[in-house]
Amino acid sequence: MHWRMIEPPPAPAYVVVLDPGDEAVAELSGFARKQDLEAAQVTAIGGFERAVVGWFDREVQDYRHIPVAGQCEVLSLIGDIAAAADGPQLHLHAVLGLPDGSTRGGHLLEGQVWPTLEVVIREAPAHLRKTIRPDVGLPLIDLTRPGEAPAPQ
Amino acid sequence: MHWRMIEPPPAPAYVVVLDPGDEAVAELSGFARKQDLEAAQVTAIGGFERAVVGWFDREVQDYRHIPVAGQCEVLSLIGDIAAAADGPQLHLHAVLGLPDGSTRGGHLLEGQVWPTLEVVIREAPAHLRKTIRPDVGLPLIDLTRPGEAPAPQ
Amino acid sequence: MHWRMIEPPPAPAYVVVLDPGDEAVAELSGFARKQDLEAAQVTAIGGFERAVVGWFDREVQDYRHIPVAGQCEVLSLIGDIAAAADGPQLHLHAVLGLPDGSTRGGHLLEGQVWPTLEVVIREAPAHLRKTIRPDVGLPLIDLTRPGEAPAPQ
Repeated sequence: MHWRMIEPPPAPAYVVVLDPGDEAVAELSGFARKQDLEAAQVTAIGGFERAVVGWFDREVQDYRHIPVAGQCEVLSLIGDIAAAADGPQLHLHAVLGLPDGSTRGGHLLEGQVWPTLEVVIREAPAHLRKTIRPDVGLPLIDLTRPGEAPAPQ
Repeated sequence: MHWRMIEPPPAPAYVVVLDPGDEAVAELSGFARKQDLEAAQVTAIGGFERAVVGWFDREVQDYRHIPVAGQCEVLSLIGDIAAAADGPQLHLHAVLGLPDGSTRGGHLLEGQVWPTLEVVIREAPAHLRKTIRPDVGLPLIDLTRPGEAPAPQ
Repeated sequence: MHWRMIEPPPAPAYVVVLDPGDEAVAELSGFARKQDLEAAQVTAIGGFERAVVGWFDREVQDYRHIPVAGQCEVLSLIGDIAAAADGPQLHLHAVLGLPDGSTRGGHLLEGQVWPTLEVVIREAPAHLRKTIRPDVGLPLIDLTRPGEAPAPQ
């Protein structure tokens, strides 16, 4: 994994390029923690040699796991980063392209990169807080409380 | 629906978070009218408990309606906002993820949010005008006439 | 094809609107060369009357071509522009919506626009270099060498 800041603060943008064998969710979560991202937008394309996506089952309040076994194009990987109780939390949704052009997609649970994943992360000079919604069973971005200034670095 | 400005003018960005039961097209259209958005880019992920997407049929110059009946992941919701004769007009395309990981998609006509829709709207200090194209039957962004400064607020 | 700068330098954004009959890859490549784009992000929606997408076959180190024969919604067209040895190079992935709401997608090889393609291109004040990876058979964004300042205009 390599990265570079391509737009300067106060609203920095980063290009992050993942390498063959990198697991996308772990690498991007690690990057978000190291940069202490509290409000950011994520967009990426590339390829996975295998992935697991999820569909959220309301009844059981958990993701149904959907494995995608072979090499696929990452047609879109879109999401955001907000601050949860235990640090920056990624929320990423993926659409994957199979050899016949058909697609699979869901909440990205795991993606093994091959040959690359080209990611743009745009950080905002703001703080987005996630709080657990017991009725849903998920942490959601909570704008109902007044905004906070980002913590000093 | 709650929103917060996360980047300041002259090119403000907003996070808009929709709540369970909100209808996405109506809520985002209302937001665009209240903020008087004349040139903006929209990106979102989240979930719908049901939706209607459209495929534009050239022969009849109208959208074929495609209902998506159950809970689905909003894998990508991408589009723009421009100024039409009757105010800001959204143009949104959606890819939706079903329980087995297969996908459906089209021009977003209607989407009932559950549990959330996390939307980023980036406004540009510009004016994009839509004009009806009689040969197409749709209002399209028209850059053939000189640009106008945004109307004073 | 018409375009307008909607955000000013040093990180300009452009709206590019393609017309019926335009071939998207050729038009956007031409725009990138004329503007000498060395680091940019691309997002678009619209429609194609036919397209060819690709799935990268590791064994033969080339794209398998997947034709999409009829009118389709461009549900997402996401990608980036970086500097390769022979000038700016686009990397675009598309998800396309068919009349029944099913989708096809892949690396965009060719797309005949109808009725429009609404493209936002965000240029960064940076330089992203692509170098051929012989083990992969593709030029990939290379952040392993130190960053370079953009060439003076």
